[in-house]
Amino acid sequence: MDSLIGSTDSKIQGVLIQNLKQIENKKGAVLHMLREDSPIFSRFGEVYFSLVNPGMIKAWKRHKAMTQHFAVPVGQILLVIYDDRIASPTHGEVGEFTLGRPDHYFLVRIPPMVWYGFQGLTTMPSLVANCSDLPHDPQELEKKDTEDSNIPYRWR
Amino acid sequence: MDSLIGSTDSKIQGVLIQNLKQIENKKGAVLHMLREDSPIFSRFGEVYFSLVNPGMIKAWKRHKAMTQHFAVPVGQILLVIYDDRIASPTHGEVGEFTLGRPDHYFLVRIPPMVWYGFQGLTTMPSLVANCSDLPHDPQELEKKDTEDSNIPYRWR
Repeated sequence: MDSLIGSTDSKIQGVLIQNLKQIENKKGAVLHMLREDSPIFSRFGEVYFSLVNPGMIKAWKRHKAMTQHFAVPVGQILLVIYDDRIASPTHGEVGEFTLGRPDHYFLVRIPPMVWYGFQGLTTMPSLVANCSDLPHDPQELEKKDTEDSNIPYRWR
Repeated sequence: MDSLIGSTDSKIQGVLIQNLKQIENKKGAVLHMLREDSPIFSRFGEVYFSLVNPGMIKAWKRHKAMTQHFAVPVGQILLVIYDDRIASPTHGEVGEFTLGRPDHYFLVRIPPMVWYGFQGLTTMPSLVANCSDLPHDPQELEKKDTEDSNIPYRWR
């Protein structure tokens, strides 16, 4: 399982992982996510949240045009990314990433045209924040079943 | 206490409140926050989170230039806003707003030059998401003590 603390590369082409700052405070921590002057910021489309109940799997999805930026400020998830882009140097690779505080508070950039899904790992609901470069548009979103046999990954 | 469900006005000049969509799902809800095509969106500066531990008070702060957009996808907070802008039609007013799911899942726009603070209302930590029009800059942030006597509000 890849965690890649502090790295900005992953084994899937175009997927970037950045360690995010957590400013601890007895009243409650302040948690960075994304700024317009970040080297990985391109443009703002939408920010929204996806709750993931314990053990639940939200998979598979692929965006034709949207680049996403995920962070998990509450709970922990397993994020799985599968690259079936024909021309990609990482074609056929599967990447697994644990996201969530305190040890895996990362920003993950997911480029268009890779399949992704996630599962809640904690006994409380996890919160995935997504700051994307385009607003939600069902026309550019594709889905496959969680157990689709064309994706070489089996959820536990 | 103002909740103003579905409204886009509040009793503080420049503060807007918008009801946000919650798409319920047994795997975990999808929670809207802000899109670039929203009529209240201006520009993207930063998105970050502030955790608020149970009963804790984070107050008072005022931004000279930044407009903030708050939503609370986890837990509940009491948000208090005090307007001491001399030329404001709501000069001297205090607004109290409960924010958090399921009944108070709102987007609140906080303009520059009003004082604000918040308190965690739930037995679990609450998460305040802020999507602001400028990235964090300590030069444009002012603070007062939680119990500052110049602000006509007493925290419980």
